[in-house]
Amino acid sequence: MKQRVERSFRREKRPIILTDNSVLMLDQRLLPTEERWDGYDTAEEVASAIQEMVIRGAPAIACAAAMGVAVEARRLPDEPAAFADGLERVFTLLANARPTAVNLAWAVAQQRAVFREHEAQGIPAVREALAAHAQAIWAEDVAFCRSMDRHGAELIPDGATVLTHCNTGALATGGHGTALGVIRSAVEAGKRIQVFADETRPFLQGARLTAWELLQDDIDATVIPDGAAAALMQRGEVDCVIVGSDRIAANGDVANKIGTYSVAVLAHHHGLPFYVAAPRTTVDLAVASGAGIPIEERPPREVTHMGERRIVPRGCKVRNIAFDVTPADLVTAIVTEVGVARAPYKESLAAQMALPGDPLAK
Amino acid sequence: MKQRVERSFRREKRPIILTDNSVLMLDQRLLPTEERWDGYDTAEEVASAIQEMVIRGAPAIACAAAMGVAVEARRLPDEPAAFADGLERVFTLLANARPTAVNLAWAVAQQRAVFREHEAQGIPAVREALAAHAQAIWAEDVAFCRSMDRHGAELIPDGATVLTHCNTGALATGGHGTALGVIRSAVEAGKRIQVFADETRPFLQGARLTAWELLQDDIDATVIPDGAAAALMQRGEVDCVIVGSDRIAANGDVANKIGTYSVAVLAHHHGLPFYVAAPRTTVDLAVASGAGIPIEERPPREVTHMGERRIVPRGCKVRNIAFDVTPADLVTAIVTEVGVARAPYKESLAAQMALPGDPLAK
Repeated sequence: MKQRVERSFRREKRPIILTDNSVLMLDQRLLPTEERWDGYDTAEEVASAIQEMVIRGAPAIACAAAMGVAVEARRLPDEPAAFADGLERVFTLLANARPTAVNLAWAVAQQRAVFREHEAQGIPAVREALAAHAQAIWAEDVAFCRSMDRHGAELIPDGATVLTHCNTGALATGGHGTALGVIRSAVEAGKRIQVFADETRPFLQGARLTAWELLQDDIDATVIPDGAAAALMQRGEVDCVIVGSDRIAANGDVANKIGTYSVAVLAHHHGLPFYVAAPRTTVDLAVASGAGIPIEERPPREVTHMGERRIVPRGCKVRNIAFDVTPADLVTAIVTEVGVARAPYKESLAAQMALPGDPLAK
Repeated sequence: MKQRVERSFRREKRPIILTDNSVLMLDQRLLPTEERWDGYDTAEEVASAIQEMVIRGAPAIACAAAMGVAVEARRLPDEPAAFADGLERVFTLLANARPTAVNLAWAVAQQRAVFREHEAQGIPAVREALAAHAQAIWAEDVAFCRSMDRHGAELIPDGATVLTHCNTGALATGGHGTALGVIRSAVEAGKRIQVFADETRPFLQGARLTAWELLQDDIDATVIPDGAAAALMQRGEVDCVIVGSDRIAANGDVANKIGTYSVAVLAHHHGLPFYVAAPRTTVDLAVASGAGIPIEERPPREVTHMGERRIVPRGCKVRNIAFDVTPADLVTAIVTEVGVARAPYKESLAAQMALPGDPLAK
């Protein structure tokens, strides 16, 4: 059963930590009013935490899944067939915890490959290798963010006001962040940047998480209702948009948090650049276009209630589509850890994916 | 001091009632979970109720202001100069309760004209005339809605799925509604209509009020986060958009609830009709374009909190722009009680305003 632990995001600068027997996670549902960390000791607890959005963000849930495999491996029986069966069950459980972010399936596939590679060396070696690889996936994700964010920061002019949607910061990744990391890196490079954060209904990642992170870093942030982005663009108060992604198709179509496509259309209408920042672990060359990306629909309660308060009358239908797809032709550039891809994305993304620099490739 | 009274919206089908000494209003801040009516006995109480959004919607607050004048007139001293001074203070107070909806200023100007017209007949006659005219403004608004909604219903095809933003129903008007009234009238005419209601952050008029009204009328309604409208349009699940307005400039630029302009851009991008329904009391020929419409910014708390729950971290800035302006070139048609205006709006709106049929013209 999950147990409360003492950790500080301000000190750790990461939302997730693997210990010997536990995955420690900051409960992002309670922010910004409460910072609570719990230890999750089984793959099932980790899968539930991913489903219930204790942790969210494509790169962060990939870390969680890899770590979930590692902690469960310590609990599985020492008998080889039972161990292998148990691990396979865990791979399936974690890979299917949420459907849209390809990073999750990627991380599980990585751990499955680690298992195969070390299986002949015995169960203790497999356990060590899974834990080490979970740590490596986390460390690499931070490194990817840092590298991506330096590339992306060059796209953001000094003095710019940047609009972002959802949360793509340290909370959504191993640390530092993708789109929010680009903003952080631009500020670290000495640029004066102002940020408009869409509150991002229904889960309020912008209002609750992005604002919280930016405040901690003393970055100038203003939260707006999602519906206000258009009016601010019309008034000339936005210079560019940058968002993250949960899956990028081979043709450059971008799946991301619901509302992203709306912002992309608005940016296009107002002639503003629309940038996407994501590690190559988010690119899925096996999916030709956005039409092939599975889009999660989540429970109605996230829309019908705000905390305990009912905001939609009982008996009324709601739709809670968690992600949308922005067609490649609305995307000005896609920034990964190896550089800036531009249209035509089929060629530029394929070229990026063919580059070396992914030491985790299995 | 305001006092609780027993009334039922389902029975009254209106959000506001003038009695001899009181304006009875349904507190729209508490819906959909609580239906509470209070009597407001002074102009100051009515003005506060308008400011705090106990009642909202351009035609409804016009009724409230006219009724507020009537109840205060009963309380003002019988001495002519003091009565006139008091009334003038009340006109100013109510006309300035909120800045964007021109209907409010229109209703107060109507009552000022009634006062001038009856002043010579003595204070009792003025009091009667102000009360009668407040009732007439309310009754005319319902009649305008009915007429407008018949014109508008012809624009909505049988089988259509209609997206609407904010609340423009009986709660926002004297009764029946503007854009939501068009939907109601289309359903009454036997058409099968499905409605997507944008939840309409920050005040959640769509989630709380539109859904509540449509449920009562057994109209097929689905609430969506504002950011999901684009994805539904992209999927071909929306056939047209219809919204209300708080002020329409002479050139056809439309001020309405924040997020409306966003929906208009999205409709344009997806080739969908974008209709506006509003009585001629919303048209302001004195304002040449949307640039001349004052746009209210409201208190941060509507964005930072949901009920008592803080959703934006303490110390973070927010913007709470209450309205936006949709340029006329994104508006497919404007429906008023005298017909359907189309571009060029400068001519079509001027022609509509020159038509007879407004017995309240002062």
